Amino acid sequence: MKINKGNWKDECGVIGVYAPNDVEAAQLVYYGLYALQHRGQESAGIAVSEGTSIDSHKGMGLVPEVFQTSQLNQLQGCMGIGHVRYSTTGESDQKNAQPLVVSYKNNDIALAHNGNLVNALSIREMLEDEGVIFQTTLDTEVIANLLARYYKDGIVSAIQKTMEVIKGAFALVIMMNGKLIGVRDNYALRPLCLGKIDGGYMMASESCALDTIGATYQRELAAGEILIIDENGIESIPSNKICQKKSCIFELIYFSRPDSVIDSIGAYQFRHEAGKILAKESVVEADIVMAVPDSGIPAAIGFAEESGIPYGVGLIKNRYIGRTFIQPSQEQREQGVRIKLNALKDNVVGKRVIIVDDSIVRGTTSKRIVSILRKAGAKEVHFRVCSPPVKHPCHFGIDTPDQEHLIGAIKTTTEIKTLIGADSLAFLSIEGMNQVTHHAHKFCKACFDGNYPMEVPRSGKKLIFE
Amino acid sequence: MKINKGNWKDECGVIGVYAPNDVEAAQLVYYGLYALQHRGQESAGIAVSEGTSIDSHKGMGLVPEVFQTSQLNQLQGCMGIGHVRYSTTGESDQKNAQPLVVSYKNNDIALAHNGNLVNALSIREMLEDEGVIFQTTLDTEVIANLLARYYKDGIVSAIQKTMEVIKGAFALVIMMNGKLIGVRDNYALRPLCLGKIDGGYMMASESCALDTIGATYQRELAAGEILIIDENGIESIPSNKICQKKSCIFELIYFSRPDSVIDSIGAYQFRHEAGKILAKESVVEADIVMAVPDSGIPAAIGFAEESGIPYGVGLIKNRYIGRTFIQPSQEQREQGVRIKLNALKDNVVGKRVIIVDDSIVRGTTSKRIVSILRKAGAKEVHFRVCSPPVKHPCHFGIDTPDQEHLIGAIKTTTEIKTLIGADSLAFLSIEGMNQVTHHAHKFCKACFDGNYPMEVPRSGKKLIFE
Amino acid sequence: MKINKGNWKDECGVIGVYAPNDVEAAQLVYYGLYALQHRGQESAGIAVSEGTSIDSHKGMGLVPEVFQTSQLNQLQGCMGIGHVRYSTTGESDQKNAQPLVVSYKNNDIALAHNGNLVNALSIREMLEDEGVIFQTTLDTEVIANLLARYYKDGIVSAIQKTMEVIKGAFALVIMMNGKLIGVRDNYALRPLCLGKIDGGYMMASESCALDTIGATYQRELAAGEILIIDENGIESIPSNKICQKKSCIFELIYFSRPDSVIDSIGAYQFRHEAGKILAKESVVEADIVMAVPDSGIPAAIGFAEESGIPYGVGLIKNRYIGRTFIQPSQEQREQGVRIKLNALKDNVVGKRVIIVDDSIVRGTTSKRIVSILRKAGAKEVHFRVCSPPVKHPCHFGIDTPDQEHLIGAIKTTTEIKTLIGADSLAFLSIEGMNQVTHHAHKFCKACFDGNYPMEVPRSGKKLIFE
Amino acid sequence: MKINKGNWKDECGVIGVYAPNDVEAAQLVYYGLYALQHRGQESAGIAVSEGTSIDSHKGMGLVPEVFQTSQLNQLQGCMGIGHVRYSTTGESDQKNAQPLVVSYKNNDIALAHNGNLVNALSIREMLEDEGVIFQTTLDTEVIANLLARYYKDGIVSAIQKTMEVIKGAFALVIMMNGKLIGVRDNYALRPLCLGKIDGGYMMASESCALDTIGATYQRELAAGEILIIDENGIESIPSNKICQKKSCIFELIYFSRPDSVIDSIGAYQFRHEAGKILAKESVVEADIVMAVPDSGIPAAIGFAEESGIPYGVGLIKNRYIGRTFIQPSQEQREQGVRIKLNALKDNVVGKRVIIVDDSIVRGTTSKRIVSILRKAGAKEVHFRVCSPPVKHPCHFGIDTPDQEHLIGAIKTTTEIKTLIGADSLAFLSIEGMNQVTHHAHKFCKACFDGNYPMEVPRSGKKLIFE
Repeated sequence: MKINKGNWKDECGVIGVYAPNDVEAAQLVYYGLYALQHRGQESAGIAVSEGTSIDSHKGMGLVPEVFQTSQLNQLQGCMGIGHVRYSTTGESDQKNAQPLVVSYKNNDIALAHNGNLVNALSIREMLEDEGVIFQTTLDTEVIANLLARYYKDGIVSAIQKTMEVIKGAFALVIMMNGKLIGVRDNYALRPLCLGKIDGGYMMASESCALDTIGATYQRELAAGEILIIDENGIESIPSNKICQKKSCIFELIYFSRPDSVIDSIGAYQFRHEAGKILAKESVVEADIVMAVPDSGIPAAIGFAEESGIPYGVGLIKNRYIGRTFIQPSQEQREQGVRIKLNALKDNVVGKRVIIVDDSIVRGTTSKRIVSILRKAGAKEVHFRVCSPPVKHPCHFGIDTPDQEHLIGAIKTTTEIKTLIGADSLAFLSIEGMNQVTHHAHKFCKACFDGNYPMEVPRSGKKLIFE
Repeated sequence: MKINKGNWKDECGVIGVYAPNDVEAAQLVYYGLYALQHRGQESAGIAVSEGTSIDSHKGMGLVPEVFQTSQLNQLQGCMGIGHVRYSTTGESDQKNAQPLVVSYKNNDIALAHNGNLVNALSIREMLEDEGVIFQTTLDTEVIANLLARYYKDGIVSAIQKTMEVIKGAFALVIMMNGKLIGVRDNYALRPLCLGKIDGGYMMASESCALDTIGATYQRELAAGEILIIDENGIESIPSNKICQKKSCIFELIYFSRPDSVIDSIGAYQFRHEAGKILAKESVVEADIVMAVPDSGIPAAIGFAEESGIPYGVGLIKNRYIGRTFIQPSQEQREQGVRIKLNALKDNVVGKRVIIVDDSIVRGTTSKRIVSILRKAGAKEVHFRVCSPPVKHPCHFGIDTPDQEHLIGAIKTTTEIKTLIGADSLAFLSIEGMNQVTHHAHKFCKACFDGNYPMEVPRSGKKLIFE
Repeated sequence: MKINKGNWKDECGVIGVYAPNDVEAAQLVYYGLYALQHRGQESAGIAVSEGTSIDSHKGMGLVPEVFQTSQLNQLQGCMGIGHVRYSTTGESDQKNAQPLVVSYKNNDIALAHNGNLVNALSIREMLEDEGVIFQTTLDTEVIANLLARYYKDGIVSAIQKTMEVIKGAFALVIMMNGKLIGVRDNYALRPLCLGKIDGGYMMASESCALDTIGATYQRELAAGEILIIDENGIESIPSNKICQKKSCIFELIYFSRPDSVIDSIGAYQFRHEAGKILAKESVVEADIVMAVPDSGIPAAIGFAEESGIPYGVGLIKNRYIGRTFIQPSQEQREQGVRIKLNALKDNVVGKRVIIVDDSIVRGTTSKRIVSILRKAGAKEVHFRVCSPPVKHPCHFGIDTPDQEHLIGAIKTTTEIKTLIGADSLAFLSIEGMNQVTHHAHKFCKACFDGNYPMEVPRSGKKLIFE
Repeated sequence: MKINKGNWKDECGVIGVYAPNDVEAAQLVYYGLYALQHRGQESAGIAVSEGTSIDSHKGMGLVPEVFQTSQLNQLQGCMGIGHVRYSTTGESDQKNAQPLVVSYKNNDIALAHNGNLVNALSIREMLEDEGVIFQTTLDTEVIANLLARYYKDGIVSAIQKTMEVIKGAFALVIMMNGKLIGVRDNYALRPLCLGKIDGGYMMASESCALDTIGATYQRELAAGEILIIDENGIESIPSNKICQKKSCIFELIYFSRPDSVIDSIGAYQFRHEAGKILAKESVVEADIVMAVPDSGIPAAIGFAEESGIPYGVGLIKNRYIGRTFIQPSQEQREQGVRIKLNALKDNVVGKRVIIVDDSIVRGTTSKRIVSILRKAGAKEVHFRVCSPPVKHPCHFGIDTPDQEHLIGAIKTTTEIKTLIGADSLAFLSIEGMNQVTHHAHKFCKACFDGNYPMEVPRSGKKLIFE
């Protein structure tokens, strides 16, 4: 079976809604997923339930592409879970769309998972030794098998035993037998928060999904917490382990929507403050500060504020690129066809430009951006990056390349500056980043410092099925 | 989990192609499936392999709807299997489309199944007790689990052990590890035949699929036979049981395409000859013999030949009805909207008509046909049925209603005659039917005589998941 | 502008419904068009009206492909017209889908046209000299322009004046200002009949569309008749010319559905009777008479009846070929891939076969059929054609090739026999054909005898836009 | 014919490419249209030509939805024109998609039009009096008819005579007989600029389309200019009238992309400068300046710069809303479902907020935005509008409501402030706006001051077909 690394190691968004006063859980899940669309554009799925049996619909594409009115109307039930999946450059595969819906002893179980298990392959092999077959390449299917095997004492016990076995990052939303269940791994690596809606509750990867549905933010789930919502109300089962919180710092740096509050920190505020510190660390004389849209905007505003250099827009991003867009040929690119970004010439020509991005991973985008600004007449281009150099691959749910393709791991800042063609280049220091978080020890910063919160495969290569 | 009986008890078509000289196995499977389209219009699927890994594409609808050129081109490999599935009136479900592709210990396995296991539910429960989860409601998934559990001594041993456990009707095509494997149950209930193509082999439910691809018909698979085709050629492993052949007589009566040879008997010839015997048994004075299109045509021609009454066309069937056709409302039906069949008035008006159909199951279609002929001016309508009354449900892969809805089980011929509004009604006698088969003991005629070749659930209800 | 000859010279089907008691005219038109689907599979369209304004929907493909429930529901109005268009091998073009809906002085006008004008190009040039622009390559657009120019004295006068100018074959259904209007050319070349529905009327190319909707057949429109249906009832305006009826004989030979009554003759009866005469003219000793499906069936039954040789099925046609079917490559064809027709071997092998077709145009299909029968083991193949040799192209709405590709025009019967590989070949004589029609002088038989009812372009080439 | 005002009075985008060294004009048009997508999301179309004959494809939806690779590949030719059309709330109609392709005396003509003729209805009536029929409700079809009628002395003469007759705003791109022609009305109301590409030229509504293709901006077309590009190069035919330039100021205020240069003024710079003047005119004490995304951003940045109050992001816009998105029900809205905009709470809560938008038309959006900010905890909300109150409907191609729905026309600023719930409200003064343009007399500001550059219909209602 061809396992695509990208398919395995994805960033995703999950949501769960328990709305006993509402017969339209599917609609609320739909709007919530739509708010999480930036977390995954490859596939979308919704599973709903009236109590025991589960109906679902999944498909490739954006939420509004997968769900038309007819499909949504067929999903009847007052509780539901949903999932969006990241679009990788590799093959897209319908069978890996989530939620995963399985049946076990007359129970339907639906699972939506954001994260990555580092020992999924080993558990899968063990299960296969016992005769288990697999129909997807999702680690979610491994979790579903474990839940079934441990189910005899009930779902909570099954989840607890499963958590004894699996290692890695996971924010799980599970629906079965009239219960909506949220689970967060013992390091709270991937985000999951709780909201209150009229007569019920919801959970979501980011608080922006709560806002979209009109839910009131309650709190994030704790590390290792199991949260059970059913007709008896809400019950929290804390981890029976000592959990050390290590939330993913990259959610704050790049992944989350700026209006989301992730682990009690507003993503915009984090970026804005980081931009200020970046300015303190590496300001240069310049005429204008601009952002790589959209992720660099809050940091650029902060940088401008701190430095006193005016903030302006320098790159315009075309908003309409969709899945089916026909990419220009190499020859057309060479002739200057630039479909995604265009320079705002008046703000660039003859100017000393500071351009702020959230991070540099491979360096190819940065190089292209410098080139666009140069062609538009920039006198100087100073590249500022609002995070430290990414030196280590993520094993916990973010799709980073292997270490050999991480430019921060293989080149010095000076080498990178030369490679991308900038007049100067500076990254935010690790200290600067820690300063913004206030509680730096509560975050996983392994992509920057290599301190993974648990053992990961050697060699800088990420674990993949083969 | 809502299990739709119709989805579980389907008639289907399967095909397998081993074409080492060809890189376009998918195309041959496509044309072969197309020839089997009458066996299933709900969903279609193709899985291909170059050796170990398997790619597949499945979807709802007719073969040409599911596969466009782009999809077919992506299916690279010199061997492939395919499946078409019957469209029931109940819900159609993408997840139940076949072939089923699973992964087990780095082996991809693809299965396409035609038939029905009578003990699938019991085995499923036993597997669930061991922690197995299910993602479909296919008994094929039960078979896949058994194969994995028995796999340690190789696939042949695994199939043999699986055949010890499962009961029921199955014609299976399996692809794994460079092997194309065909399996037929110990009663040979469902059809499966072998053909020779340039440099390779193929198997299919019906010989018409062989003709379409240009393959040469070799033989049908024997009861209990396992046939393995790989780079070493073809190997037949006979059953280690004493197998008593009991092929489904309904394939000859109705299901197979008239140009197919099923268990060495041409379907057209069977129907034509049966029509002659029917005429001997129940001819009446009449002006014209006509058929219910298309399945009654060979029998009607035989009936006309034997009786000396001229054969003619009396009902025209619209050829263009597809999945998406908007059905008329009840009110429109009452106003006379008749979209599927129209009477050819000149052949009916003022005539004494003998109308020949292949079988009567519920009686509703027969009633409608008599009504159409009456409205078109028939002086007399004599209904002749080229099979005995269906009195018992099928448990072996044909979607019959429960016994209480089988009109032949609950009413006498005279009562049925009155109910459908015919001037006379006659069925082919069981003796007459036996006479056509020559070797009547080699056929399962349980739907007529209740002599099931193995134990089936009591009560006249079919086994269903619930 | 690229004008595709095939697009210009099409056979089509038209329908009009006036149903004041019904708000669902679109649905009745839909079912009626569906019954006329055999007359055109390239595109379909429906226009409806409540009185003055007209809504329409058109698209490429079969009726059920073009219209889903949502589209049909948006077409509100108690009157409507519809059109299906023939699929030619040339380019299909959305813009040429009908009905044509135009606006003129606050009047919406919808036109659906079956036929071909022989002077459309000349009129178009004249109109262009006056500054008229064209947006399609339909002669319907020429007619629409003439109607507008002659409109000042009302629509009837406009139609009459238009009929003075246009030459050729046309069966027109027009909707405007609360009126449903039918028009047939002065030779009644193309068919159009009238039916009665509950509280209203309908018109259609063939009576089978009336049967489908539950309408009662009234009569065919007369040559040159204008029929106006509105709130005042029905009014017939006869032609003010002496009209000589010359209906297209090919509707009876091939084009119409066998259950349609065309110009008072049942299509099935015509073909059946012609088959009998053909047998009288050219019977040979043989074991079986079979038809090229489906068009040759009535004639083959008649031939068998007359000759006393048994009728049987020898070729099975796959019913599921649709627009999107992926055609086999040349190489696959050579390897024997045969997707459309398969021989029913038991009826062919070792037999002397008489195979009956409705007509021979180019001879390529006939050649392929003889080859299929030979490969299936036929001892002798005697080809019988239930119409005379086609020697002249049609200029009145049927898409025949130019004369140089009409095999009947360029080869003798003996030469054709050799070319198609038959043991013998016979056509129905013109006298035989005339005998079936009873009133031979009322039919255009120009494709056989060259006696066109009006002047047509010289040279054997059909008039086309260029 | 139902004429939808919205459909008639649209803002659109046009493009033309003459690329003799390139056989892929369609691809360049595709990328250019994509850059103009913000000007119209209802439909898109491309017409191409090798010299005389024209091929085209049009459809409803975004550029990437209408054109897949297969459609684009079928459009062969070294010259092409394209069109995108604005999505109104009214009915969308395939027949009104552009370019309009017509045929006249063996010439194919394709037209793409941005603008609105104020006398289209009168000319249409005159043409109808001469018998002309219409198939769309586009004024482009009126223009096409005039071109044909005046064509006898060639296309340039025809355009000149047409321009004598039509009144209103138009930026036209025409393709015929190997020529690409651009035309701008005598007031230069709608934008059209010229660019140079390798071996050829292009024209487009906005310069951002030139940048996307890699073309070099040359100049805007002059008022009344006819520009002809063919194998002989480029020829400019100035208007034979005294033209007084009156370009649409709303292109700079709102419609154009910020990176476009419209009539020699950068749209971003205009908005940024206007924001500064707005700050001078109406600054208040506040904690943060934020924009209504995306159109208010440049002005908000300018406002912040001038006032010294920090700029920040306060509203997050979901980027993924597409055509098929299922809108929330009224009940869901009341329960707080907010799918398009979400407040960035940390920047709003407890703050005195200045929110900057480009304009206020009906006031409903402004009211909703104030409400979102209040709910997010804003202490004060000061609304600043970077244009004067819109008091008069546009008759020249921008889809404004009738005067009675223009809140600036019927209410005072104080009343509007109360209605939208703001603590204060200020518009940019007309003097302030004029100051930014430098050459205020060269702009049409009729929507603000009622000084239409030509006569328009009385009564404040816009001219529509009925």
